[in-house]
Amino acid sequence: MKLVETVPNFSEGRRKDVIEKVINALSSVKGVHLLDYTSDQDHNRSVVTLIGDPESIMEALFRGTQKTTELIDLTRQQGVHPRIGAMDVIPFIPYKDITMKECIELSKSLGKKIAEELKIPVYLYAYSASNPARKRLPEVRKGEFEGLIEEIKLPERHPDFGEPVIHPTAGATAVGARKFLIAYNINLNTREVKIAEKIARAVRETSGGLVNVQAKGLWLKDQEIVQVTMNLMDFEVTPIYRAYELVKMEAHRYGVEILESEIIGLPPIKSLLQSLSYYLKIRGKGYDFSLEERLTEKLLE
Amino acid sequence: MKLVETVPNFSEGRRKDVIEKVINALSSVKGVHLLDYTSDQDHNRSVVTLIGDPESIMEALFRGTQKTTELIDLTRQQGVHPRIGAMDVIPFIPYKDITMKECIELSKSLGKKIAEELKIPVYLYAYSASNPARKRLPEVRKGEFEGLIEEIKLPERHPDFGEPVIHPTAGATAVGARKFLIAYNINLNTREVKIAEKIARAVRETSGGLVNVQAKGLWLKDQEIVQVTMNLMDFEVTPIYRAYELVKMEAHRYGVEILESEIIGLPPIKSLLQSLSYYLKIRGKGYDFSLEERLTEKLLE
Repeated sequence: MKLVETVPNFSEGRRKDVIEKVINALSSVKGVHLLDYTSDQDHNRSVVTLIGDPESIMEALFRGTQKTTELIDLTRQQGVHPRIGAMDVIPFIPYKDITMKECIELSKSLGKKIAEELKIPVYLYAYSASNPARKRLPEVRKGEFEGLIEEIKLPERHPDFGEPVIHPTAGATAVGARKFLIAYNINLNTREVKIAEKIARAVRETSGGLVNVQAKGLWLKDQEIVQVTMNLMDFEVTPIYRAYELVKMEAHRYGVEILESEIIGLPPIKSLLQSLSYYLKIRGKGYDFSLEERLTEKLLE
Repeated sequence: MKLVETVPNFSEGRRKDVIEKVINALSSVKGVHLLDYTSDQDHNRSVVTLIGDPESIMEALFRGTQKTTELIDLTRQQGVHPRIGAMDVIPFIPYKDITMKECIELSKSLGKKIAEELKIPVYLYAYSASNPARKRLPEVRKGEFEGLIEEIKLPERHPDFGEPVIHPTAGATAVGARKFLIAYNINLNTREVKIAEKIARAVRETSGGLVNVQAKGLWLKDQEIVQVTMNLMDFEVTPIYRAYELVKMEAHRYGVEILESEIIGLPPIKSLLQSLSYYLKIRGKGYDFSLEERLTEKLLE
């Protein structure tokens, strides 16, 4: 049975009633399992994890995007997380009996539908990108909603689907196929955002750090601390523990300690056991040694 | 749907053909999922993890015990792990929609059948124990197969099922209901078994260490190193990382380091994420944050 995973990110993390309505729309199709969602006040953003057969997932994502278009107005939305759209990003991730190529096709077909029926310009990113400059989400999201209003008119920023005119309240949406991504945040016991920014530069790929890691330093107003927010783009190569230990090491330079860390959404168990194996020096077995993982395999057989 | 887990331990970890035949017998019943097995040369022992509905599991365990009785002769079997029987221990663990009380009933019914049909004396242990002295497996196994030949005649060592006469080749079997147990071994970079014994005394409940932890020091002939072998009897209260860090701390006193550690069988994911959360200071979420665990829940709904 083909199973695809999707982790739509939408730009509302504060208004409970809005969050609930979008989640309901996203999980209203038979065949779609809602596995998890997380809402963050500072980010003003929610991240949902769904799994299901391709056809049901496509319908659920369309309904969810429609709902965010009705309920979220980006001209009034503020948060520390960059965003271009009400439904900001929709990734398709191969989960079982489905290839990356099939996921690329799904992303294109959904992008086309969103552009045509909801009048929202759509950018293809990651494995679906039409050119290398659009592979990385930060490039696609450059300038954010506010900047894109003008920039979308430039040829190099024309969307892949829809007219080069931003939706007045719902902005634009990025859709693409990708590997499993781990959104991973580390909070530090300092109020100096410059320290978080320096650490982010030290750990990320683009400025001398770990490959497959994107990182930014943020100020968390509500908690009055700073955060290094990361995306681990290929955990099989660059695991969670390595990012954690490198942040810890760089923080020590400034006399700063890690307060806590947070994995957003539902990571595959392999990514977790890989890190546990490091700390406990677990030998041999590989990463499929939990009871639930083995049972899932049997139940899906 | 009622699901019970069982982790039979049998006294053969070297002869591949024998191991295979026992595994086949244990997994030959429809409705039984064979999730895992591990065989250890030094321990000369295999540990199997099965899950299924109670009736199928009962039949599978009887067939497996019958097979070990045919193929394993304890008068010729040697290993560093203590044992009283060819099929040494059979625990029943509540997994889903089943109570500890029901698992106690299952253990008694299987024990009776093994004693009557295979002429193997059976001891009830853990939650099924008929008196407090039999709650702990090390007590039930005291003297091992060789010692029990005589001791079984003493009233306080009479079996719960069957005559007080040991089976000449298959010994005796312990059957009982219990919580999930984590068998956890830590290897140390020293050849001095006395150091492993001292560390074991320092970390186990009966001599000043952690509650819910049983521990022994062993010499691993094949690898020429020593091991602290532990049972964590209630990981929700006394987690894996605490045992690991305490062994590490006690080992440092002797200038000894941990080489590697090994979890035998399939631990519940909760026990693993609990430890990962310690190392990565993961906040909030509890321990059900992997994709596979959530999916298993949905698939079993």
